[in-house]
Amino acid sequence: MATNPDVTKPASPEEQDKFLNDVFQMCMQRAVQASRDRNTPLVNFKKPEELKKLLNFELQGTGESHTNLLALCDKVFDYSVLSGHPYFFNQQIGGLDSYGYAGNLITDALTTNGHTYEIAPVFTMTEFAVLEHMLKLVGFHNGEGTFCPGGSYCGMLAMNVARLQKYPDSKSKGLYGLPRLVTFCSEQAHYSAEKNSTLLGLGTDNCWKVKCDNRGKMIPEEFEKRVIQCKNEGAVPIMVVATAGTTVLGAFDPFHEIADICSRHDIWMHIDAAWGGAALLSQKYKHLCDGVNRADSLAWNPHKMMMAPIQCSVLLLKEKDLLNRCHSINVPYLFQNDKPYDTKYDLSRNLVQCGRSCDALKLWLMWKAKGDSGFESQVNQALAKAEYLTEQIRKRSDFRLVIPEPEYTNVSFWYIPPSMAGKEENADYFKQLASIVPTIKLRMQLSGKLLVGYSPVGDYPTFFRMIVLNDKVNFEDMDHVLNEIERNGRDL
Amino acid sequence: MATNPDVTKPASPEEQDKFLNDVFQMCMQRAVQASRDRNTPLVNFKKPEELKKLLNFELQGTGESHTNLLALCDKVFDYSVLSGHPYFFNQQIGGLDSYGYAGNLITDALTTNGHTYEIAPVFTMTEFAVLEHMLKLVGFHNGEGTFCPGGSYCGMLAMNVARLQKYPDSKSKGLYGLPRLVTFCSEQAHYSAEKNSTLLGLGTDNCWKVKCDNRGKMIPEEFEKRVIQCKNEGAVPIMVVATAGTTVLGAFDPFHEIADICSRHDIWMHIDAAWGGAALLSQKYKHLCDGVNRADSLAWNPHKMMMAPIQCSVLLLKEKDLLNRCHSINVPYLFQNDKPYDTKYDLSRNLVQCGRSCDALKLWLMWKAKGDSGFESQVNQALAKAEYLTEQIRKRSDFRLVIPEPEYTNVSFWYIPPSMAGKEENADYFKQLASIVPTIKLRMQLSGKLLVGYSPVGDYPTFFRMIVLNDKVNFEDMDHVLNEIERNGRDL
Repeated sequence: MATNPDVTKPASPEEQDKFLNDVFQMCMQRAVQASRDRNTPLVNFKKPEELKKLLNFELQGTGESHTNLLALCDKVFDYSVLSGHPYFFNQQIGGLDSYGYAGNLITDALTTNGHTYEIAPVFTMTEFAVLEHMLKLVGFHNGEGTFCPGGSYCGMLAMNVARLQKYPDSKSKGLYGLPRLVTFCSEQAHYSAEKNSTLLGLGTDNCWKVKCDNRGKMIPEEFEKRVIQCKNEGAVPIMVVATAGTTVLGAFDPFHEIADICSRHDIWMHIDAAWGGAALLSQKYKHLCDGVNRADSLAWNPHKMMMAPIQCSVLLLKEKDLLNRCHSINVPYLFQNDKPYDTKYDLSRNLVQCGRSCDALKLWLMWKAKGDSGFESQVNQALAKAEYLTEQIRKRSDFRLVIPEPEYTNVSFWYIPPSMAGKEENADYFKQLASIVPTIKLRMQLSGKLLVGYSPVGDYPTFFRMIVLNDKVNFEDMDHVLNEIERNGRDL
Repeated sequence: MATNPDVTKPASPEEQDKFLNDVFQMCMQRAVQASRDRNTPLVNFKKPEELKKLLNFELQGTGESHTNLLALCDKVFDYSVLSGHPYFFNQQIGGLDSYGYAGNLITDALTTNGHTYEIAPVFTMTEFAVLEHMLKLVGFHNGEGTFCPGGSYCGMLAMNVARLQKYPDSKSKGLYGLPRLVTFCSEQAHYSAEKNSTLLGLGTDNCWKVKCDNRGKMIPEEFEKRVIQCKNEGAVPIMVVATAGTTVLGAFDPFHEIADICSRHDIWMHIDAAWGGAALLSQKYKHLCDGVNRADSLAWNPHKMMMAPIQCSVLLLKEKDLLNRCHSINVPYLFQNDKPYDTKYDLSRNLVQCGRSCDALKLWLMWKAKGDSGFESQVNQALAKAEYLTEQIRKRSDFRLVIPEPEYTNVSFWYIPPSMAGKEENADYFKQLASIVPTIKLRMQLSGKLLVGYSPVGDYPTFFRMIVLNDKVNFEDMDHVLNEIERNGRDL
């Protein structure tokens, strides 16, 4: 693409506004509206090398005209994935919520740093309001919280707080002279527990995996056994990461039993509810989270089941002031005490981050728009569709559930092609079932018609893992998924 | 505000689109266009308690109508800070760049997770393109990089990589059995070095501050002395954080001398160029960064001087594959090797983050729009305005520079009210000068006409610290700043 030789002077304000309007209208048509139309392909998949030829990514010495820029933007839409499309079931994101998008429009227009009240007063207050509401839902009645850039980051802060609670001196002295500290999580927990162990200087070897039952739930007796083993080795158990809604199977750990063990052994209980926290919004399903109020900290990603635009992650703590105690380092250029307001509102005082994006407003606006009841119906509907899908799989002889009774909206299953019907179900059989999953997925991906994730987990070889969250998805879409898999797999 | 009783069914797609259009037009008027008008107040400042009365932040059981939501959005604009306003000089952000905003419109519309190529193909490729271009500018010719949620996070990853380079086993074993590890930074470095030391289990006591000269630059001889002291104590120096553009004074450390010391003592050299990296875009000013190519890693925040919307932070590393070696933990549900593309494009393989927002596209679009030359002229213009401001301060007898020759766009100064003119310049005199700064700032803030940050640093008591970056700012605005300070301070 040639650079436009007449782009020597910057565009006028009016030209820039027109450009912004054009881009916004393009967003409306090519994302907001397009992702409502089931006939729009959800992706025109190209490999990296192909994409490089179709879209000139290279940066150059001189700028492009608005005409050329709009053509580039158009291509961005041509080859991106419509994660808001009703046939996107690949990960725990999607849905393109209008109120969330509206919130982002405002946050981006007022682009600011969420570190001090002074330059982000409204954003700060929306953060407080949302946190307060979520703390109530979790049952942390005198707690505090913060928005974080992602669920892994929430877990990292929680691990740091857990450690500094046990060994306050380690804030200044580090780990030197301390015994070996051990953290625990289930073998099906999110991999961030391990990553965070390395980051915090504990090491992955000191992140101990606890066995799960066949539904993917941590076995409490196994947890306590491991805690005792840890102590016998002279190491100190500091924290367990329990999970509300595991990534693959959507399992909820037995929180009450885990909490009992934690109090017996003085262990910090963190719950990774990044995915499953949303169950708390539903009277019908909040029992899945029974016992979360007994945790010391909990991470919840509204950018997952609640359909907030990415990034929108929250860490909640049962006790107040821990964040400040663990992270505060006063710097006079930023955190002055001679401000005309209570400086507890300068949120980065309590955080490792200094500069941070204002992620609360979009969630706040969504909550204002929907109310608790809107979110409740969203969660109930998602679960109802997952239950319908489960029912359909049970009815079809060429599909087979991995977990007979899924707890959440993760529905895991294999497709059995006609060539394998009635065969003996031995190890080879499952290996073969597993091997055809990526092929079917790729065919669907290349057709642009459906994206469904897959994974192995524990002893189960690779299977399809459906994720339902998008409120534009209906029951027929569940049938569509099974039909498409059938259509793409029946010759295998 | 009463909830609207007729909001019982969700809005139709058409109603939602209208709402989005209305919000966007509000953003255009109340942020994009308003921040071009010098007569618009940049903030209508209210304390938290006042704000709570003016805007109903509380979340409720049921949703609000679009009419009510739009009224709420309007109030968000009423009480937010226009960081894009030409009179916003409070922090190293601002400017509200049209192309950056356009990029965000697209990223938000296609909201996705930047962890795998599969669901973020175009975003991934823009990330590669921007990183490649920035690596070239820094002089890391065979390097790699990643976008991070903020500059502190970049420094955290760099510290982790530095440690794991020195002690690869610590990835699995943690710090146990290792000697005490020490990091260094100047006493005027960003406070994230200390925060990251705690986070990584090293402890703030093991983040050693090196003395600065009176321009705020690290003194290399002092650095080497401290390194030798560290070794004599039996500790291991692992990393230095040098700074390109310190937060308060905008000082650039002597990179060549620091690099020499690092190679003599086998120390990882990280440069925090969050603020000053942009100097590399200018032929005229890139000399400020002489020697940055000798670092092992460098952090650069395009959301600062380059005016990219927050968050937009980049970590660059001189050597390839370190990120993967330090952070990879393969999880089969996410990082399958049976993908139809080279899986090096699944970026979260190399990161601690799993879910992450796609921050590259907006910067890529800005770069496409402006080219290198556009950014160069932006930097040159900002420096020219800062130089003009410096000149005006020199000419006015009631102002006094803190640093006689500022290197970057941070201009630090005191205002001398008539009551203090000609007084003896002893410690009391400076204490008094410092004491009036917050008063003047508050008056200007309450008038909504000007936001200028202030800070003490090193031996210098509190002074005004002007930051210039917004390309809508002109030379007259520099005069306006001095006039406003004069006007608000002459009775003190």
